[in-house]
Amino acid sequence: MNYKMVGRLIGKMLVVEAVFMIPALFISLFEREYRAVLGFAVSMAVIFVIAGVLSLLCRGSQKKFYAREGLVCVGLSWGILGLLGGLPFYLSGEIPDFVDAFFEIVSGFTTTGASIVPEVEKLSKGILYWRSFSHWLGGMGVLVFLLAVTSAGGGDNGFTMHLLRAESPGPNVGKLVPKMRKTAEILYALYILLTVLNVIFLLAGGMPVFDAVCTAFGTAGTGGFGVKNDSIAGYSSYLQNVCTVFMMLFGVNFTCYYLLLLRQFRNVFRDEELRMYLGVALGSVVLITLDLKGFYPTFGETLRHAAFQVASIMTTTGFATTDFDLWPAFSKAILLGLMVIGACAGSTGGGFKCGRALLALKSLRRSVRQVIHPERVQVVRSNGHPVDEKILQNVNAYLAAYVLVIILSFLLISIDGFSVTTNLSAVLACFNNIGPGLEAVGPSCNFSGFGWFSKLVLIMDMLAGRLEIFPILILFSKYTWKRR
Amino acid sequence: MNYKMVGRLIGKMLVVEAVFMIPALFISLFEREYRAVLGFAVSMAVIFVIAGVLSLLCRGSQKKFYAREGLVCVGLSWGILGLLGGLPFYLSGEIPDFVDAFFEIVSGFTTTGASIVPEVEKLSKGILYWRSFSHWLGGMGVLVFLLAVTSAGGGDNGFTMHLLRAESPGPNVGKLVPKMRKTAEILYALYILLTVLNVIFLLAGGMPVFDAVCTAFGTAGTGGFGVKNDSIAGYSSYLQNVCTVFMMLFGVNFTCYYLLLLRQFRNVFRDEELRMYLGVALGSVVLITLDLKGFYPTFGETLRHAAFQVASIMTTTGFATTDFDLWPAFSKAILLGLMVIGACAGSTGGGFKCGRALLALKSLRRSVRQVIHPERVQVVRSNGHPVDEKILQNVNAYLAAYVLVIILSFLLISIDGFSVTTNLSAVLACFNNIGPGLEAVGPSCNFSGFGWFSKLVLIMDMLAGRLEIFPILILFSKYTWKRR
Repeated sequence: MNYKMVGRLIGKMLVVEAVFMIPALFISLFEREYRAVLGFAVSMAVIFVIAGVLSLLCRGSQKKFYAREGLVCVGLSWGILGLLGGLPFYLSGEIPDFVDAFFEIVSGFTTTGASIVPEVEKLSKGILYWRSFSHWLGGMGVLVFLLAVTSAGGGDNGFTMHLLRAESPGPNVGKLVPKMRKTAEILYALYILLTVLNVIFLLAGGMPVFDAVCTAFGTAGTGGFGVKNDSIAGYSSYLQNVCTVFMMLFGVNFTCYYLLLLRQFRNVFRDEELRMYLGVALGSVVLITLDLKGFYPTFGETLRHAAFQVASIMTTTGFATTDFDLWPAFSKAILLGLMVIGACAGSTGGGFKCGRALLALKSLRRSVRQVIHPERVQVVRSNGHPVDEKILQNVNAYLAAYVLVIILSFLLISIDGFSVTTNLSAVLACFNNIGPGLEAVGPSCNFSGFGWFSKLVLIMDMLAGRLEIFPILILFSKYTWKRR
Repeated sequence: MNYKMVGRLIGKMLVVEAVFMIPALFISLFEREYRAVLGFAVSMAVIFVIAGVLSLLCRGSQKKFYAREGLVCVGLSWGILGLLGGLPFYLSGEIPDFVDAFFEIVSGFTTTGASIVPEVEKLSKGILYWRSFSHWLGGMGVLVFLLAVTSAGGGDNGFTMHLLRAESPGPNVGKLVPKMRKTAEILYALYILLTVLNVIFLLAGGMPVFDAVCTAFGTAGTGGFGVKNDSIAGYSSYLQNVCTVFMMLFGVNFTCYYLLLLRQFRNVFRDEELRMYLGVALGSVVLITLDLKGFYPTFGETLRHAAFQVASIMTTTGFATTDFDLWPAFSKAILLGLMVIGACAGSTGGGFKCGRALLALKSLRRSVRQVIHPERVQVVRSNGHPVDEKILQNVNAYLAAYVLVIILSFLLISIDGFSVTTNLSAVLACFNNIGPGLEAVGPSCNFSGFGWFSKLVLIMDMLAGRLEIFPILILFSKYTWKRR
């Protein structure tokens, strides 16, 4: 294990984190929220000191850096970012329990949006801003950001590839352009562009600037922290529809946007994952609208709520315009299904991912065909191209890990005595980085009822979901820490 | 597709089914239950006519028979056995709805034990016997029986292997001896021996003969249909403990018993699947006993109920001595987990199977290690021997199919409007061939509340679970019905 390089990288990430607290600090100053100002100032000081110590301790390392180091870097750094990123909540006194503060910021960075705060409107502006901004930062990835702005590990070596692969979601991470740093730059440019567009559309509907920026952060990262107690329910129909559209947009693989810029329209519209994503969303909206007949006064309102909730759950954002826990069983079952499928690979959304589900289904279809005709060689294709067997193996291993994490987490948090539906939906909502679940963790409730042990389990779930399990799993393998 | 051979085999299976109705017919005669007598007599006549027509239509076929035919045979014949096996219930008027009768007998043959009968004590003795006997017949497999008593496809060719492989549970079906027919004979001999032992132990505790035979059928097939409204709760502690022990015994891979007869004790006690099976069961009993502290008057009673319910759920039998739906959340979560894991491969129990779970976990561990050290070749071992990559691929495909069936079935039966817990546990209880679930399908309730559509979905789940998915899946693939 190349501890020095891992340490230096974590140090750099901490500097990024502290620097990104500056806007929140200024907002607190401007709003005269002095306890929050103190919280941010002390947190930044602590983070800078730790970053400094790390960079001193980890000077002059060797350059060797493998997949193992990449994964460990990602797993550890997200954990440490969470521990220190929750400090302002704790030190300002606005979230008086440290585990709660840890839960809240990990929920932010992992773009989950599950909250332990009963009434967010009681939080100060600076804290609300930091909470929402953590979504935006976590959505595209802190390491990707680091790659975009610095040379990180010194040039464009395997190092950057390993990092990007470990932090970016999806079964196979494509390089948009040969240079990884350039790829990271393009991704962040697209991300910023879409976020700014989102803010403009929200401002056009009369949303206050602070709300618009925070809502856009929550949408862009597919996070789901809002600034109102009732999430998005209190805003106008226009604003709700803007959110629906932008949630769906941020759930699309960013490669598609890059291809659109390159005018490769055909490749985009023929993309199988994109088709599945839009098809599943559309089908769900139709079925839920039919199922909700008579639930809302007008057809238009029914359609709006159905579309919003489908977009919110499928993209794993977690905003709500209505308490879908009151919906009939079939609609809730569809939402639970969408929780698992999730958004597209290479987007800011979580879940199992449409692309991975598609590969798993194709792999299953091949197995069925192989039973029928064992003598024929069958190749799994994606967008017309044969898929490497290694990738199919990874998809299957991912599924096994995915099921294992869900079952174990469900067992562990059951100790708190909540209902099966609460516990299962809490695990699904955290592990798939969605936010609200059903019953005691439904959209009108929050996660504060769980004990600290369950909260720690759910924190691990959020991290495992955001980082696609393996960077967290290998932290627990003795194999990782052995010398070569 | 070799339709003629498939047809002839289904005809033979129907003859077996009709012949096995004779004891039930005599019991009905003896008990003067004349409507039941009529029901059995007419059913047998119908079945014999259909079998006769099939054998006439399917004379003189070619001998070619591949895996495809084996799977289709198994899938179709179990469906037809169910349709016709439910006739006595329907014709006797004791289950007046045909879909209900179909549900009940498929639940019997697949050894599920999920019932739509609110009060089983109201059923006639002949019908109760047929209901329980269907468990015994389905437990080891009707085709395996056919292989044991006839030459089936004419001698010991690939045909018998394909059939046995398609009907027997587990990731890899071992031949006990080189000849498949001999293997089937040995399996049935062991099965009969253990069943007789079970009856003797029950009689020794003072259980009436009829109850003892039916209970032993339900235990041997890991089915769960009882002859009392309160399942096993009304019997003495001794009888409950006998059931606990025999349920566990029937959940063990039958190969282990064969090895014991051959005095290969070491191989049995070192068997990884057996160790996992016993370890998980023991661990679950301990955890549930701790969790239930204060729930029952004495420690002994708590332990007895915990052990019984763990054995019943893990072996997928489904008997109950207490309403575990009233247990605290953690205990119920453990039971839900056990529902998924299931018994050993090569036993009469259902579920994902311990052996398959073990291989999936080992395959996952290898994937983690491969991420850490991509350059090392890693082999998955089972009981010290390297596992063929084909088998690992099958385990992974099985997992994908397993998850897919659960999600789809859950969505489909949600239309009836029951709670998430009810629907999920109903699917798990039927698909894993257990029987009772939680809430509206808990041990004190039954499946009669579902609509006919949901019942058909659950019937497919029971068949898919018992036949390990693929024989049912390939019935729906257009690939199966194409000419070569």
